[in-house]
Amino acid sequence: MCRFIAYLGPSVPLARVVSEPEHSLIVQSYRPREMTSGTVNVDGFGVGWYNRTLDSTPCVYTSISPIWSDRNLPGLSKHIASNCIFANVRGATPGQAVDQSNCQPFAYRQLLFMHNGYIDNFRFTLMRQIRTALRDEYYTAIGGSTDSEHIFALLLNTLHGHVVTLDGLMSAWRDTIAQLAAWADGQGIRLALNCAITDGELLVASRFANAGPAPSLYYGNNTSFFPQAGVVASEKLSAGEEWESVAENTILGFDSSLDVRQYRLQRGELP
Amino acid sequence: MCRFIAYLGPSVPLARVVSEPEHSLIVQSYRPREMTSGTVNVDGFGVGWYNRTLDSTPCVYTSISPIWSDRNLPGLSKHIASNCIFANVRGATPGQAVDQSNCQPFAYRQLLFMHNGYIDNFRFTLMRQIRTALRDEYYTAIGGSTDSEHIFALLLNTLHGHVVTLDGLMSAWRDTIAQLAAWADGQGIRLALNCAITDGELLVASRFANAGPAPSLYYGNNTSFFPQAGVVASEKLSAGEEWESVAENTILGFDSSLDVRQYRLQRGELP
Amino acid sequence: MCRFIAYLGPSVPLARVVSEPEHSLIVQSYRPREMTSGTVNVDGFGVGWYNRTLDSTPCVYTSISPIWSDRNLPGLSKHIASNCIFANVRGATPGQAVDQSNCQPFAYRQLLFMHNGYIDNFRFTLMRQIRTALRDEYYTAIGGSTDSEHIFALLLNTLHGHVVTLDGLMSAWRDTIAQLAAWADGQGIRLALNCAITDGELLVASRFANAGPAPSLYYGNNTSFFPQAGVVASEKLSAGEEWESVAENTILGFDSSLDVRQYRLQRGELP
Amino acid sequence: MCRFIAYLGPSVPLARVVSEPEHSLIVQSYRPREMTSGTVNVDGFGVGWYNRTLDSTPCVYTSISPIWSDRNLPGLSKHIASNCIFANVRGATPGQAVDQSNCQPFAYRQLLFMHNGYIDNFRFTLMRQIRTALRDEYYTAIGGSTDSEHIFALLLNTLHGHVVTLDGLMSAWRDTIAQLAAWADGQGIRLALNCAITDGELLVASRFANAGPAPSLYYGNNTSFFPQAGVVASEKLSAGEEWESVAENTILGFDSSLDVRQYRLQRGELP
Repeated sequence: MCRFIAYLGPSVPLARVVSEPEHSLIVQSYRPREMTSGTVNVDGFGVGWYNRTLDSTPCVYTSISPIWSDRNLPGLSKHIASNCIFANVRGATPGQAVDQSNCQPFAYRQLLFMHNGYIDNFRFTLMRQIRTALRDEYYTAIGGSTDSEHIFALLLNTLHGHVVTLDGLMSAWRDTIAQLAAWADGQGIRLALNCAITDGELLVASRFANAGPAPSLYYGNNTSFFPQAGVVASEKLSAGEEWESVAENTILGFDSSLDVRQYRLQRGELP
Repeated sequence: MCRFIAYLGPSVPLARVVSEPEHSLIVQSYRPREMTSGTVNVDGFGVGWYNRTLDSTPCVYTSISPIWSDRNLPGLSKHIASNCIFANVRGATPGQAVDQSNCQPFAYRQLLFMHNGYIDNFRFTLMRQIRTALRDEYYTAIGGSTDSEHIFALLLNTLHGHVVTLDGLMSAWRDTIAQLAAWADGQGIRLALNCAITDGELLVASRFANAGPAPSLYYGNNTSFFPQAGVVASEKLSAGEEWESVAENTILGFDSSLDVRQYRLQRGELP
Repeated sequence: MCRFIAYLGPSVPLARVVSEPEHSLIVQSYRPREMTSGTVNVDGFGVGWYNRTLDSTPCVYTSISPIWSDRNLPGLSKHIASNCIFANVRGATPGQAVDQSNCQPFAYRQLLFMHNGYIDNFRFTLMRQIRTALRDEYYTAIGGSTDSEHIFALLLNTLHGHVVTLDGLMSAWRDTIAQLAAWADGQGIRLALNCAITDGELLVASRFANAGPAPSLYYGNNTSFFPQAGVVASEKLSAGEEWESVAENTILGFDSSLDVRQYRLQRGELP
Repeated sequence: MCRFIAYLGPSVPLARVVSEPEHSLIVQSYRPREMTSGTVNVDGFGVGWYNRTLDSTPCVYTSISPIWSDRNLPGLSKHIASNCIFANVRGATPGQAVDQSNCQPFAYRQLLFMHNGYIDNFRFTLMRQIRTALRDEYYTAIGGSTDSEHIFALLLNTLHGHVVTLDGLMSAWRDTIAQLAAWADGQGIRLALNCAITDGELLVASRFANAGPAPSLYYGNNTSFFPQAGVVASEKLSAGEEWESVAENTILGFDSSLDVRQYRLQRGELP
């Protein structure tokens, strides 16, 4: 499994998001509280952010070491600030390679994506089915071997040719979930799709599993630790009332106004 | 590009093959003599060998560091001996990831494989075509993103269901080359397939390019440095007359008897 | 903190020692049971062994990745056998670098050494004192920055000019502990010296702390899982009665006869 | 050996300094032109810069991979801008560890330092002498095992208690060179001290060897590629007349005004 955090709000140093919360990703890497499988998340990590003054695409920093022992992260976190920050710690499914190509978040043009969940027995179930469905440009963009990167590729395929708006992104992501759930049901396997997607201005996230409870996901809106910001995280970043559990099978989306749209996935509409 | 060496003969320490020759792989990594593209080979390396007393499959050691700075290799090379040793230094094609998943040699069951060459613009030319042709068991066995590993998968696909004999392996490899060359010609791209394959008892190697000169390949039979052994290498391992250039578009195969079979690929038989 | 295991007995594949026990080092790396500080041991690992047919010095394999995700270890463990095997998983003290130079076991000529414990605030307490005491040949042999490697250097300094015998090694180790404890007491700091030392034929181990309880240490002699062998490990490798807790402040030593000598460190003899 | 570049001027993206020059550090890593020892510089690299809006200390990014294959550098270089940038590619002296602790530039509080040169046989000549001379705070700050980091520690020791001004830094560096040269002469060994030091506002550099020619060093002042900036580099970054060779045994220093002070080290004043 993995743990992630997604931040959209006023510009803050990366450290504010990555390491300063009481129950930060650093702590969640060695002492997570709500994992439903696996024990620790030390098989690499990644941080993505935007600096639109210089470039419209996101910058991604990844490493295959545990997040707490990476030598570059403390400095980068203190010296870089951004209004949109994604961070992820990886707990690799046994048998999956700990390569840098497999570290999230994944980037494609102006988009960042990360996934906390699983597709059961991915290499032998949906991998080929997903790849076969992809246009060449997304097929060839896959650099690693994780289910997460393939899920992102399928989202890109669904988004193909559309301008990225909040509605458009939520709807493309809903269709992608529906497609994956249909394939999974067809093979009788389980998947969990807690994900976050951004272009630096809009943020879409989901909590979803096709069978049984979905992994935990929380949302904080204009909290005391992150004023004027929207934050989505796998686990509560601090004790207290400010973190709200995202309902199961829900997609939420917001922009800098922090007005949150929620979309409840109906069983009926999933094929 | 890459540089490789393949050894079959009496049991010797890995160091004899990897580091002790005058113009060893270590030297070929930073000062190769006959590269037709690229300048150095420092994007990882790998060594594979057999210890049949304990297990029939090969053991593979890979690392993403330059071969000369890897801290484990000197010790391993001195303390491990084998009768069949493959070693490879990688010069990654620009844009290809320096992940451990991409380090050669590749292993599958009792086989070892390595490739020194290229498929032009692989991700955008033959990658999808090769994958589509594969049976699920070889499709899912691919862990990295190199042309080399895909070429090996296609060989495994061709070998499927056959017992590995010297004739059978040479013939499967000839068919694999023919298939790849046909696809390459169909897309008007160049490929070079200097490869070596072994099961620990038989060794098959090829020097091949579909257009223009093939990369260099040499063969030494019962040389003074490697008595009673057959050795195939990208570059001559020492000055002198003992290293024979393998003819272009040729497959050669031998076992411990060192009687070499050669097979000249006829243009006619390539589709 | 760290966890370690030391094996002396009939030749077995490394896997027998490293990964096959029920509560193996792999498990102890992510779910240790008896750690007195730290939570996991994923900041690198190392395995050392002897193959006297080829060379009298030990071979050491180290890596900075968690032991379970290292790609080379499963193959090496299956294809290499030895009569004397040391293995260690590292939980770095916060602030200490996760460099390969800091991975145990450490080797010097024919000796292997590993340490599970700590010297409080090492860089600012005993580091300089230890270095100042060393002969140039051991001073210059230090490649990393851990307390463990410095402790080993001090032992080598004490052993200087002596032939390695079981009595001699136990006695040099006792003197080294006494020296370190005296320095630690002088500065009012705590240290713990659970260590293991071997030359491939003799094995010496200690459980020691100068204040408060020492970290756990167990000894198994001719157990059902390791017949005819002596094994020392930070934690019991399986449930059951076969693992005996080593008494605090004790040095034990044995050779292939498995007759164990024990030496109780008397408070009086420690300066 | 190593190759480095130091930039002080208007804020530019890191890429402008690291990868965009015609004969950039990337090229100098695999095809250097003026190396007097070694062949390539692929044993890690580092980039240091300042972002004073967020913090007064420098940020350092290091990696043990060759600079061209590092996955994070292209993104970081495009998304981070600074007015003061140091970058270095390492060609490790054989036998020195390729650890991240050994990658330059080194940082201490507000200072950045890098060194291109050598101290002959360092571990066995000046290492202990330098360490013995250090105050505890600089002794304990050493994290790796390179001559370069020890040279920096000696500079810090010389600077101890002084405010950093251009004159003060040039003078402390002159005294440090004099001390090292005296010790080297005392042992009859060679050293080369091409170095660069900055606090983000002042830049001091030297070209020095105690015997024979010093390694190459160039200076560009308000060049067409780097307008309004002062740049010091191991090799000319482009063809043409704009790069001036720094005279041997010279220290130069400048601030944002780009008025360069030069100080010629007189043989007489070196002990």
